Amino acid sequence: MTGELKGGYAGKILRINLAEQTFSEEPLPVEMARDFIGGAGFGIKTLFDEVPPDTDPLGPENKMILSVGPFCGTTVPCASRLAVTAKSPLTGAVGVSLTGGYFPAEMKFAGYDIIIIEGKAEKPCYLWIKDGKVSFRSAEKLWGTRTFDCQQIIKDDLRDQNIRVAAIGPAGENLVPMACIINERRAAGRKGLGAVMGSKNLKAIAIRGSNEVAIADREAYKAALANMNRAMKESEVTYPLFSKHGSPLAYGATTEMGIFATKNWSATGAWDPFEKIGLPAAEARNIGHHRCYNCPVACSQMSVAGDGDYKGIMTEGPEYETIYSLGGTVGVDNFDAVIAGDRLCDELGLDTISAGVTIGWAMELFERGELTLADTGGVELNFGNDKAMMQLLNDMAYRRGFGDILADGCKKAAARLGKGAEIAMHVKGLEMPAYDIRGAKAHGLNYATSYTGADHNRGYSNHEIFGIPVPAPVDRFAVEGKGRETKENQDIAAACCDCPTMCNFILGQGPLLMMATQNTADLMKAVSGLELTPEEVQTVGERVTNLARVFNVLAGFSRADDTFPERILTEPIPEGNSKGNYIGRADLDKMLDEYYAVRGWTREGVPTAEKLKSLGLEQAAARLAQSQK
Amino acid sequence: MTGELKGGYAGKILRINLAEQTFSEEPLPVEMARDFIGGAGFGIKTLFDEVPPDTDPLGPENKMILSVGPFCGTTVPCASRLAVTAKSPLTGAVGVSLTGGYFPAEMKFAGYDIIIIEGKAEKPCYLWIKDGKVSFRSAEKLWGTRTFDCQQIIKDDLRDQNIRVAAIGPAGENLVPMACIINERRAAGRKGLGAVMGSKNLKAIAIRGSNEVAIADREAYKAALANMNRAMKESEVTYPLFSKHGSPLAYGATTEMGIFATKNWSATGAWDPFEKIGLPAAEARNIGHHRCYNCPVACSQMSVAGDGDYKGIMTEGPEYETIYSLGGTVGVDNFDAVIAGDRLCDELGLDTISAGVTIGWAMELFERGELTLADTGGVELNFGNDKAMMQLLNDMAYRRGFGDILADGCKKAAARLGKGAEIAMHVKGLEMPAYDIRGAKAHGLNYATSYTGADHNRGYSNHEIFGIPVPAPVDRFAVEGKGRETKENQDIAAACCDCPTMCNFILGQGPLLMMATQNTADLMKAVSGLELTPEEVQTVGERVTNLARVFNVLAGFSRADDTFPERILTEPIPEGNSKGNYIGRADLDKMLDEYYAVRGWTREGVPTAEKLKSLGLEQAAARLAQSQK
Repeated sequence: MTGELKGGYAGKILRINLAEQTFSEEPLPVEMARDFIGGAGFGIKTLFDEVPPDTDPLGPENKMILSVGPFCGTTVPCASRLAVTAKSPLTGAVGVSLTGGYFPAEMKFAGYDIIIIEGKAEKPCYLWIKDGKVSFRSAEKLWGTRTFDCQQIIKDDLRDQNIRVAAIGPAGENLVPMACIINERRAAGRKGLGAVMGSKNLKAIAIRGSNEVAIADREAYKAALANMNRAMKESEVTYPLFSKHGSPLAYGATTEMGIFATKNWSATGAWDPFEKIGLPAAEARNIGHHRCYNCPVACSQMSVAGDGDYKGIMTEGPEYETIYSLGGTVGVDNFDAVIAGDRLCDELGLDTISAGVTIGWAMELFERGELTLADTGGVELNFGNDKAMMQLLNDMAYRRGFGDILADGCKKAAARLGKGAEIAMHVKGLEMPAYDIRGAKAHGLNYATSYTGADHNRGYSNHEIFGIPVPAPVDRFAVEGKGRETKENQDIAAACCDCPTMCNFILGQGPLLMMATQNTADLMKAVSGLELTPEEVQTVGERVTNLARVFNVLAGFSRADDTFPERILTEPIPEGNSKGNYIGRADLDKMLDEYYAVRGWTREGVPTAEKLKSLGLEQAAARLAQSQK
Repeated sequence: MTGELKGGYAGKILRINLAEQTFSEEPLPVEMARDFIGGAGFGIKTLFDEVPPDTDPLGPENKMILSVGPFCGTTVPCASRLAVTAKSPLTGAVGVSLTGGYFPAEMKFAGYDIIIIEGKAEKPCYLWIKDGKVSFRSAEKLWGTRTFDCQQIIKDDLRDQNIRVAAIGPAGENLVPMACIINERRAAGRKGLGAVMGSKNLKAIAIRGSNEVAIADREAYKAALANMNRAMKESEVTYPLFSKHGSPLAYGATTEMGIFATKNWSATGAWDPFEKIGLPAAEARNIGHHRCYNCPVACSQMSVAGDGDYKGIMTEGPEYETIYSLGGTVGVDNFDAVIAGDRLCDELGLDTISAGVTIGWAMELFERGELTLADTGGVELNFGNDKAMMQLLNDMAYRRGFGDILADGCKKAAARLGKGAEIAMHVKGLEMPAYDIRGAKAHGLNYATSYTGADHNRGYSNHEIFGIPVPAPVDRFAVEGKGRETKENQDIAAACCDCPTMCNFILGQGPLLMMATQNTADLMKAVSGLELTPEEVQTVGERVTNLARVFNVLAGFSRADDTFPERILTEPIPEGNSKGNYIGRADLDKMLDEYYAVRGWTREGVPTAEKLKSLGLEQAAARLAQSQK
C-alpha cells in the first residue's frame, strides 16, 4: 500500500458532542483511508477505538458514526451510500446499517467523510450541518412526528428545500431496538440504530453542502469508470431486469430455489404467495422508479395500493425483504397490505424485517394456541391477518400493550414470555432476512457468523442465490467449502460495498462481482491516489471483519452465538425445491470449524494475535490479550 | 384611473391547451390590470369572456384560470396568494378559490400573472412550467397518488426540490365536485376546482421561475410598506394573538357569540365542544407554525395527534373551518380525529368544509332514523363517530358505496335520496362554513348572495364577528342596514384581498381593515405605477362582484337562489348567546331588497344596464340584454 490522499475524500472528520453542544473537526488520517477505505470500515474502526465493548447501547457513551466512502458524491455510479455504525441495542454487537439516497452525497458535499456523534442532548434536538457549521436546534416540538413529515418541516424551517434530512420516527423516540433511521424514503434499517439516535435525544440530522469532490487522476478515473460502466452494461440482469423490477427480482430466484421463507419459516416451499405478492403484483402496482444520487440503475420501485382498504397509499418499495417480512413470513398475500405496511414502517421508523419477522413469530404462537387473545390484548393474530399486522406495527412503535413486548424483537419477546424461543427466527437477536438458509448454506453461515447477526448484506452469497460461477458453480446444499465461500463473501462485501459505500445490489448481477476488487482498486487509485492491489482491497474487507469480530468478542460473544434458531437446526424445509434440507448441529459445527480455520481464528472463533497483526490490527490483538488475562 | 404597467405585474398571460399540447403567451392588457387588479378579478374577467355560462363544469369547454395579484412575489406581506377560477361543478356558478403558500410567488417568478388552462388532455398529464417553457408530461403513473406523495414524486422526477406543485388527489381524479387542489399542505379548497382539474386529466401543475418582480417606485413602495406594516403592528390581534393561534382564534369569538354551528346546525349554542377542540386542544397539540412566502404572521398551526388511534398524525392546521366541519358539525369532540381527518382530506384532495358538512347532514338523518344501516352500507352514522367519518372521507374520495352519494355534496345527496333537503346546510350547493349566520346577519346575507354560494371569504363580516367599528359598531341581529354592510364587505373583500391576492386573514384584525382601500391604492401605485383612488379600488371590488353576478344570471341563477336552507329560515338557535334567532323569510326578503337596491340591481337581483355601464361593463350589459330577449 502506498500513496496519500489526493482527492476522493473530503479529508475531514466532524465530531459532535450533543451534551455539550460543541463540535470540532479533525483531519482524516491517510492510514485510515488506506486501511479501511471508508463507510463501514471507518465506522467500525471508530467504534472499536472509541466505544468500550461493554457500553450500554442506549447509554450516552455509545456513539453514532456516519461515514461515507471515497466515491460518494463523485460520478461513480451507485456510490451514494452512507454507513451508520453504533453498538446495536438489538444485538449488543457491532451495528452497521447502510442507506442510500441523496443524504450520503450531501454529507460529502458538506465536507465530511465521517461524522461522530457523541453524548446525549439534554432535550430533543436536531443537527443542522452546513459546510462546516453545525447548529444544535430544538426538536422538542418535532418529537412525535413521523419521519416524512419531520423531514419536510425541517426543510421548511430552514427555508431550503435542498437540505437532506435523516430522521427517526416514534419508534426511535420510544427506544424500540428495531427502530431505523429514515432519509428521504430510504432506511438505515437494521440493528436499531434509530433507537440509538432516540437515546441521544437526536430527532434528525439535516445536511447541506457546496463542496465538490476532487478527483486525483482524471484520466485514470475516466478509464476506471468506463470499465465499471461496461461491466454493468454487460450484465444481462442490471439494466434489462433489475432497473425494471428492483429487488423483488430476487423473489423469482428464491421461489425457484424453494427458499422463500413463509409463515415464520414453517411453510417454506409449502406456501409461496409469489403470484399475489411477487413480481406480477409488484408490476401491477408500480408507478415508477426512483434513483439514489447519480445512480443509473434506479432500482427503487414506487408502488401505490389499489382497490380496497389501503387504496391510494404509496410507498417507495416494497423491497424484496419487505415482501417477505410484511408478506411471506406473516402469511399476508395481499400486496396492498404489504405496501401499506411498508409505508407505515417508514413513517414510524421501524425496520420492516425485524418488525415483520417478530409479528410472524407471534402469529405462529397464536396459531399453536401458545398465545391467546388475553396475551395479545384481543388481537386475532392469525397468519394472514393484515389488519392485526398494521395495528401491531403501530403498537410496537408506540410500545403499547402487546406491541410493547414485540417491540424488543423476537429474541427478547420469547425470553419475556417464556415461550417460542425455538422458533424465534434470529441470530444474535437480529431477525432473519428473506432467504431460507436451509437451502443456501453459505448464505446461512454468513447469518451465523456475520458481525451484525442475521444480516444478508454483510456476506450475501450471490453464488448460491444467483448462480454466479466465481470461481466455479457452488452447491448450495453442500457443507464442505462453505467456510471459505462465506469468508470470501463477507470480505468482498465489506471491501467492495460496505467500505467504499458502493451499492451491494449491483454485485449480484454478475460481471461486476467478477471484477469487484479490481474495480475498487482502480477507482481508489484514480479518485484518491491511494494505490491498493485487488488483494489489498480484499484484505481491507478481512481487516474490517476481524476488527468487528474482536469488538464482539470483547462484548461477550463467542462460538455459541454463531448459531441458528432450533428450527433451522432440526426442522427440514417442508416442500419445494429445497425440501428436506436443514442444517444440523454437526453440519453447523463443520462449517464453523472450516470458517474459523480459513479466517485464522481459534476453534472458539476468536481471531488469533498472529492474524490480527498480519492485518495491522496490533491494538486489537493487545486489547484481546488484555481481556483474556 | 391613469397610468401604465411599470412593475408589479409579470405582464404576461400563459395560455395552455391540454388537448393540443400547445401553449402561447399574451401580454397582460393594462386596462385589465387597472380594472381588475389581479387574482379573482383576472379569473372572473377571463371566465366571463371565455367560458359560456351554460358550459358543463366538467366538460372540456370549462377553463381553469390561475391568477395572482401585483404584490405577489414582492416583499409586500401576506401577498403570496393564488386565485383559481372556473365554473364550479358543485354550484354551477362562478367558482373562485384562493390558496397561499409558495406556489403563488413561484408563478410570478416564472413570469405569469395569469395561466389559462383549456381543453382536456387525452391521457393523464401534468404541466411543468419553467421560466416561459411548458412541458406536458405523462401522469398516467401518478394517477391515483395522494397529493403530498404526488408533489414529492414530481420534484424528484424533475430533479429540483425547489419546484412548487399544485396537485389533485383521488377525489379530483374521481370528479368529486368537492375536490380541492393542494399545493404544499395548503388547499384551493372550495367549489370543486379539483374536479375541474380531474376532468381535464390534469393531475398537477409544477412551476419554477427565476424572474424578479419589478417595483415601479421604490420610494413610494417603502412608504406604503411602512404604513401597512405599522397597521399590522398596531393590531392587538395580528402578532400577539393571530400569529400564535391562527384561525382557531375565531372559535373563541363564535363561541362567545353563540354562533359556532354544531351537529349539522341543530345544536348551535346547546353543544359546543370548545374546551375539547378549541384553543386549549389546539395549543396542546401544536408543534409549530408555518408561513406562506414572505408572510411575517405565520398563522398556520401545525398539529400532531396525541395518544390514541391517530397518534403521530400531523397536519398543517386544522384551521378553524375544519375544526367546525370535521369537529363541531359532525359532533366529534376528539381533536386528534379532527387532525387526522384534516390530514386525510388534504391527502385525498377533499374540501374539509363540504366533506364534513355533508357527513354531518347524513349523521342527522341517521340519528332521526331517516337513514338506516342499509342506506349507509353498515356504517353507524351517529354524531361523534369519528371512525365513521374517516371511513366516509375515504369512500367519498373514491366514490365507494354510500360515500359515492355524499361525494356530490349535501344538496345533490338530498335530491338523490329524496330526503333531508330542509336541513342540507348549503347555499347554491356550496356547504355552509363555520358561522351560524342566524346570529350574524350580514355574514348570512353574504352567504345568500355571494357569487360562489355560501362562502365566508367573499364578504366576511369582520364587523359582526370581531366587533370592528367601521364606521360604527353594528348590531349583528338587526335586519336593517345589512344590505349595505354586505355590499361593503363583499366589495372590500374583492378589492383588497381577492383581486390583489392579499391574505384576507389580516383584514379581520382591525387597523388594516380601516385603511384597506387606501393601502391597496398606495401599493398599486408604488408597485405598478397604476394610480387608483381608494374609491376606485373599492369600485374594482364592485365591478368584479357585478361581473360574476352577470355570469351567474346568464347561467340561470336568480333571486330564488339567494336564500338559505329551511333550517335557517324557520328554526331558532336553540341555546347560547344567539338563542332564539333565525332569519325568517320576510327578513331575508327585506335584506335582499336592500342589498339589491344598494347594488343597483333589479328587485330580481339582476344588475341593471346602467349599473354595469357605470362600472365599464358594457359588454356584460349587452350580453345580459341579449339573453333577456
